Amino acid sequence: MTGSLIIAGLGPGKEALVTPDVTQALASATDVVGYGPYVARVARRPGLTLHPSDNRVELDRAQAALAMAAVGRRVVVVSSGDPGVFAMASAVFEALEGREDWQTLDIRVLPGITAMLAAAAAAGAPLGHDFCCINLSDNLKPWATIETRLRHAARADFAMAFYNPRSASRPEGFMKALEVLRQECGTDRLITFARAVSTPDEKLLTVTLGAAVPEMADMRTVVIVGNSATRRVGRFVYSPRRAG
Amino acid sequence: MTGSLIIAGLGPGKEALVTPDVTQALASATDVVGYGPYVARVARRPGLTLHPSDNRVELDRAQAALAMAAVGRRVVVVSSGDPGVFAMASAVFEALEGREDWQTLDIRVLPGITAMLAAAAAAGAPLGHDFCCINLSDNLKPWATIETRLRHAARADFAMAFYNPRSASRPEGFMKALEVLRQECGTDRLITFARAVSTPDEKLLTVTLGAAVPEMADMRTVVIVGNSATRRVGRFVYSPRRAG
Repeated sequence: MTGSLIIAGLGPGKEALVTPDVTQALASATDVVGYGPYVARVARRPGLTLHPSDNRVELDRAQAALAMAAVGRRVVVVSSGDPGVFAMASAVFEALEGREDWQTLDIRVLPGITAMLAAAAAAGAPLGHDFCCINLSDNLKPWATIETRLRHAARADFAMAFYNPRSASRPEGFMKALEVLRQECGTDRLITFARAVSTPDEKLLTVTLGAAVPEMADMRTVVIVGNSATRRVGRFVYSPRRAG
Repeated sequence: MTGSLIIAGLGPGKEALVTPDVTQALASATDVVGYGPYVARVARRPGLTLHPSDNRVELDRAQAALAMAAVGRRVVVVSSGDPGVFAMASAVFEALEGREDWQTLDIRVLPGITAMLAAAAAAGAPLGHDFCCINLSDNLKPWATIETRLRHAARADFAMAFYNPRSASRPEGFMKALEVLRQECGTDRLITFARAVSTPDEKLLTVTLGAAVPEMADMRTVVIVGNSATRRVGRFVYSPRRAG
């Protein structure tokens, strides 16, 4: 039996946003590996073993998945959204470092609808012009790096999408980010808080940076800051196709 | 009969990357509007009228779609990839400006797998850390804006994804972009050319910036430039989860 490892994106939450490619991979899997709440989205069936794990053990999880593939299992590692955007794909490739035996395995990444694109679609088209995508969690990088990126992004006049804006353990980071953004972009710039998009808990809020407060975000929220031309039309927010 | 307008993303090419949400919208449509090659991906059936149009008439196309929805048609505007990323969603919202009669229509955006995420998945995980996304076409903005954005992106140490890197009419733009990138990032930085990802014409090439030449890209290519930490492992390219 030849093993394989597929790193699959489940999209932001709604089943109708899971691609047929991913549905097919799950239907053929012998083992599904991932963070508990994502594994819980996979239907149980005979012949399929679910391996839910805790948050923040990405490398352990990746190594366990590769070890199973190496002994012939058909393993799917699941992420929410897209596996290549602040999710499991990088962790799997990190786990391949120095393991030439694993590097020749059948490994594929199946893309998914990442949270910022589902959030943008729900709001209108705030990412319709050049944009950047920043993980605001300071678990994996120092605050100084985040601040530098925010300032360059503002001066480039990128729209910006933020993942993991506000952790329970370090709520002050997002407050500092909002301060930097107000300095660089002014208080009239539009900011959209998109929580749990495509799920029954979906909540959208667009305000100006002047009116934004950290409590508008939690860890289920994607935050989108417009560029200098981003505007409202009717109930929508969008960035025009031409440069701001 | 109540009309509606759905702006739907068909993904990068492969049918198994079209979300069930989009498939369902197409099954319920009376009219499909879009650039000819994208409309050609929609199956013909009785009761469905296809309205293919030329490239670069996005605003006319958006207005025509809205006018049909206003008289009760169920219209789907199709884009490849995601409609909110350099595609039709912004054009539709531009067409809503000053038209309060159209602003109250039932309008929804359905996300799709955008080209850079399909390209990243095919290559490994080069967008696995903070990144930006820039349309290199100078149809809609001056070269000076593009250059400023490239320099800020490099100094922020973003990975970068480029859409429309090289037009037949202005091939010199991408050559200039590569020069700016070599100045800012050095010649060892990895760059991936991903052409027609997920289609039978798919072609992937990763080289260093020093070895990159403009002819490696055409208008069907998405280009991904790594950050300072982006590296190869086995046949893959990825950006580690920690800051470069």
